[in-house]
Amino acid sequence: MLVILNIGELVVIPKGPVCGREMRNVRRIQNAAIVVDGGQISWFGRATDVLIPPGSDVLDAGGGCVLPGLIDCHTHGVFAGTRENEFVQRIEGKSYADIAREGGGIRVTVDAVRAATLEQLIALALPRLSRMLHNGVTSLEIKSGYGLSVDDEFKMLESVRRLREFQPIELVGTYLSAHAVPREFDGHTDEYLGRMLDDPVLSRIRDGRLAEFCDVFCETTAFNIEQSRRVLLKAKQFGLLPKIHADQITQMGASRLAAEGGAISADHLEKIDDGGIAALKAVGTIAVLLPACSFFLGVEQAPARKIIEADVPVAIATDYNPGSSMVESLPLTMTIACTQMRMTPIEVVVAATANAAAAIGRQDRIGAIDIGMQADLIVLDVPSVERWMYEPGRNCLRTVLKRGKVVVDSSG
Amino acid sequence: MLVILNIGELVVIPKGPVCGREMRNVRRIQNAAIVVDGGQISWFGRATDVLIPPGSDVLDAGGGCVLPGLIDCHTHGVFAGTRENEFVQRIEGKSYADIAREGGGIRVTVDAVRAATLEQLIALALPRLSRMLHNGVTSLEIKSGYGLSVDDEFKMLESVRRLREFQPIELVGTYLSAHAVPREFDGHTDEYLGRMLDDPVLSRIRDGRLAEFCDVFCETTAFNIEQSRRVLLKAKQFGLLPKIHADQITQMGASRLAAEGGAISADHLEKIDDGGIAALKAVGTIAVLLPACSFFLGVEQAPARKIIEADVPVAIATDYNPGSSMVESLPLTMTIACTQMRMTPIEVVVAATANAAAAIGRQDRIGAIDIGMQADLIVLDVPSVERWMYEPGRNCLRTVLKRGKVVVDSSG
Repeated sequence: MLVILNIGELVVIPKGPVCGREMRNVRRIQNAAIVVDGGQISWFGRATDVLIPPGSDVLDAGGGCVLPGLIDCHTHGVFAGTRENEFVQRIEGKSYADIAREGGGIRVTVDAVRAATLEQLIALALPRLSRMLHNGVTSLEIKSGYGLSVDDEFKMLESVRRLREFQPIELVGTYLSAHAVPREFDGHTDEYLGRMLDDPVLSRIRDGRLAEFCDVFCETTAFNIEQSRRVLLKAKQFGLLPKIHADQITQMGASRLAAEGGAISADHLEKIDDGGIAALKAVGTIAVLLPACSFFLGVEQAPARKIIEADVPVAIATDYNPGSSMVESLPLTMTIACTQMRMTPIEVVVAATANAAAAIGRQDRIGAIDIGMQADLIVLDVPSVERWMYEPGRNCLRTVLKRGKVVVDSSG
Repeated sequence: MLVILNIGELVVIPKGPVCGREMRNVRRIQNAAIVVDGGQISWFGRATDVLIPPGSDVLDAGGGCVLPGLIDCHTHGVFAGTRENEFVQRIEGKSYADIAREGGGIRVTVDAVRAATLEQLIALALPRLSRMLHNGVTSLEIKSGYGLSVDDEFKMLESVRRLREFQPIELVGTYLSAHAVPREFDGHTDEYLGRMLDDPVLSRIRDGRLAEFCDVFCETTAFNIEQSRRVLLKAKQFGLLPKIHADQITQMGASRLAAEGGAISADHLEKIDDGGIAALKAVGTIAVLLPACSFFLGVEQAPARKIIEADVPVAIATDYNPGSSMVESLPLTMTIACTQMRMTPIEVVVAATANAAAAIGRQDRIGAIDIGMQADLIVLDVPSVERWMYEPGRNCLRTVLKRGKVVVDSSG
């Protein structure tokens, strides 16, 4: 058993999804303690009330703030190669279309991933995951989608599976073969989808537990509404729950498709409209907003306030990827949400814990402080989440625990 | 002597000020080496051409990019207390005026600084300076302006002087008693200025070398044009070179005053107009832009592209302070300039080295790579400045050298 003492403020995040004003009504306990037993929270409350079981280990929180481990619920964290040249071209005024015409864009990463071995993909991802852990991330979704052939997509999903052996972050795989149409299928989108959604392919993903979700990039430059519907419905038959890249650049009804298809989350939403918001609300789909992506691209943010005020549960994720969001820090992403989307610190913390857990179907186990919840916890070196978000660019993590075990300790 | 080998790319920043298209025309040497003698650069060039003097120490740059140490030329880095409550109030929609009415704003920090001892101010600043050093900052300007009484302003300037004893960053003091009118002088701005610009006060600053510059916050809520002119002209008589907080919230002609008064820099400039840009251009005043401040406040950025295209030399600084820019990371600030102001990575690097040096009158000694320049150098763990700026929120610093001595080494 482990007892965490000297907690300046315990942020009692409720189980997700959390909507609307409830995102701000989070209980805080000053001078708190937590008891962890068997990797789960077995007690929490005021430090003056704690009973320390004999033989317990004790962790000193140093007066810092304690909250659930962060959950990054939308990333493309397995990739090879970098695309800083496109970053510069965009600043110089080139459009996405110009960059693609000149041989840039996602296909550059696809070529690099196809050329990489499984072991190389793992070796490239490990230091990223280590830095994410040091930023407080204890659970992480990673999508495929840079392979775009059956073998290369399996290589990506297999790398996610194997990465679990080497580091403590809990990893969640998502099958995103419908990320783009690869060069060799130019003009043959439906044939490409047929290949990637073939029964043996989806059976192998299901049987090997290589992914829990299936995602599709619904956009004029990728897959249209009809194709996106086909992807989500077919994958669902094989137990892969739908996610969708929706309303990022073009408003083409993707949020409505998310609702119609019972998607667990609709992600991006920079261009969502009132009908899309109402559709998500009606079925309880999580709106996953990606403020680091808009920051990185220098474009408009999703209308977070409007979505929250419509009582749609909002999650925040990094969208970490080499093209449009080379931002691996979820705390920085959360601060961007504060300053650029006008979300309050407690709202972004709920969005990156309870609601992010709901976006990956784990709200009953992680992302909240409650008896029986998994003891994925972070200890900050500051006394409140407000103080944390107020210091962009400084790592305020003191200690990170995964299933009750200390996996990062910077307190020394 | 010290020889730095295995430099993947040496960014040969020229001496500041650097203007217009010259900010992009920076020479890069691949596979480079540098020889340091007596704390200065005595040779640099291609590694194949280096002559390693017998008995030299050797530093391996690990194939990383090498450039001059960063210079943060506008900060309020000595302060006490934090103001995260205002950060939240702003997100909730409160105006600057509302916050001030409710007892917030600069006076909160003034009360905290007045209540702090000299030793407390030093102890609070030291960990900040340590983190700045780890972010690659080797020279730093710090303003007074939270004391707002003769004794408390001297306490602040004295803390800057004393901080030199404890850490390696070169510190530059600026006298900013004209930051705000303190409570006890409400409605008596001219009397306040008379007190703070009294001959014995300015003589003591000059004789004790407590500041090199005098700054004024020219704004409707602080000091008007006439009062600002008075501050700058009087301080100049005592050898304090003028700087000015100009055109931040209101366009009231402050950039023109900067030019008229021969200011070394005009800082902020979010609301600068064409006449102001022309005025700065005419006299060569450095435009110090503060992108982290606009990011932190969630307001419009200064028109960086317009200013650069008018051939005004542009510097970038953090504006680190507890009210409007709790961002201590100059690299993050530089990335904000890339994504939110459309400055290219090489432009922001010039802005945070050569032009920042010019903004504190040190362009002949620091901020550039040339024979005889002080060996303030940083080694990145990435191969180019483009790659560095493309990874917001990740610390890419490998090694930091001040006057040729290694002061940070993360290469192990």
